[in-house]
Amino acid sequence: MNEPSLMSRLSLNQITVDQWTLKEAVEGSVRHDIPWISIWRHKIEEIGLKQAKKLVQDSGLKVSSICRGGMFPAATKKERAEKIDDNKRAIEEAAELGTDTLVLVCGPSADKNIDEARKQVADGIDQLVPYAKDYGVKLAIEPLHPMFAADRSVINTMDQANTIAEKYDPSEVGVIVDVYHVWWDPDLYKEIERAKGRILGFHVSDWKVPMPDMFAGRAMMGDGVIEINRMRKAVEAAGYFGPIEVEIINKEFWNQDGNNVLQGIKEAYEKHV
Amino acid sequence: MNEPSLMSRLSLNQITVDQWTLKEAVEGSVRHDIPWISIWRHKIEEIGLKQAKKLVQDSGLKVSSICRGGMFPAATKKERAEKIDDNKRAIEEAAELGTDTLVLVCGPSADKNIDEARKQVADGIDQLVPYAKDYGVKLAIEPLHPMFAADRSVINTMDQANTIAEKYDPSEVGVIVDVYHVWWDPDLYKEIERAKGRILGFHVSDWKVPMPDMFAGRAMMGDGVIEINRMRKAVEAAGYFGPIEVEIINKEFWNQDGNNVLQGIKEAYEKHV
Repeated sequence: MNEPSLMSRLSLNQITVDQWTLKEAVEGSVRHDIPWISIWRHKIEEIGLKQAKKLVQDSGLKVSSICRGGMFPAATKKERAEKIDDNKRAIEEAAELGTDTLVLVCGPSADKNIDEARKQVADGIDQLVPYAKDYGVKLAIEPLHPMFAADRSVINTMDQANTIAEKYDPSEVGVIVDVYHVWWDPDLYKEIERAKGRILGFHVSDWKVPMPDMFAGRAMMGDGVIEINRMRKAVEAAGYFGPIEVEIINKEFWNQDGNNVLQGIKEAYEKHV
Repeated sequence: MNEPSLMSRLSLNQITVDQWTLKEAVEGSVRHDIPWISIWRHKIEEIGLKQAKKLVQDSGLKVSSICRGGMFPAATKKERAEKIDDNKRAIEEAAELGTDTLVLVCGPSADKNIDEARKQVADGIDQLVPYAKDYGVKLAIEPLHPMFAADRSVINTMDQANTIAEKYDPSEVGVIVDVYHVWWDPDLYKEIERAKGRILGFHVSDWKVPMPDMFAGRAMMGDGVIEINRMRKAVEAAGYFGPIEVEIINKEFWNQDGNNVLQGIKEAYEKHV
């Protein structure tokens, strides 16, 4: 089997050009010959699922993932059940938009008890698996950088993500490798190898010093310290040749013309990924 | 053996009141009945080692640590040798000021190769051990939060710190447990237990959401999500009953009257540590 070319794997993660509507992001991707797109749910909500589906289908773009499900921990049983319901909607949206990958940002602790929050994440995923399977959607656990443990996700290492995923069949639960979140991990390459057969996505951006903003200060590939190319080769050695999402959450990019951002992405992607 | 009281273990890490000179910090600690102090090298430099020593001796304060040695990685052999020399000065200063603990902030990568930087850290420590031993000073490896991997330290987990420390006798190399840096670690309590007999310090502050500043946005104990009391009990179960440093790096505290900061620290320390 021939490996797909790098350019044929390029995916625009929509948050990178959050200034654009879904329509603008779809048209921009087509204009710049970017074959894949990762769609965020707040952008689907703006126009409705039906319209979103039509936009994507008419464009010929492939959808690499829907971002995002997760956010499982909560203080009460009732709230946790509501979160499961919301995740079921996310699964339906993924299926409807033609992707088999739902990215899970697992959620922070509802209080100081981080161990309990981690149990609630594992429990939430366990509840969702049969539902996702019915829709042909895989749950993709994305470990987030430990600096987000208090406000976004208590799943902070590949080891944690792999440990949960391994309880299920690779057709049900896998992991996302996002360079920004895991580049520092001393066990990174061991854990990428361990994830063989269940890597469901590879996300790229960069970590620049000084960091302008913890959440929205990610850098263009090549502008920071991350060994992106080494990591790409590692996920390929673990069998992943799927779409590569460029997910650069950066406030400054949101103030630019999206076309310039996409042009910059393509150049940096060719050079540094 | 009776356990020492919590108040008898309180140490002011000087960076918490960086607006103060060493003289002011020493006098402030005495005024507020804080028995220990951790001294930063830039404050020693301001008045010279001899004067710093006299200040501390006259005050009757005990010195919990000198902050900091480390910063080992560098691009050239010459630069790395210079860093070793600087660490030797830090060891001499620790001995002169009457503490057996030199905190190591191990340093970031000099380029994109984080594995190489980690090797340079291990190598730097290895070179220092005999020198430190001659001075009766222990090298205390402080793992820093992974968000500092690019600019302050490539040692980001207790596992890494323990793995290096275990190559030496506990009288030579140990670890610092700083709640802000390690609270998120899924292996935290296992690694604290593993560090038994080599814990050389316990540092407290808190992690507040939203985080106002990655470096200088730490919160007062009790104002954030960290299970400080649980961690204190864990380090005690691992045999550590030494000084507890309050190290709150927070710009806002630097703009306040240091006496108010110390008053707040004592109250929060009693309630939340």
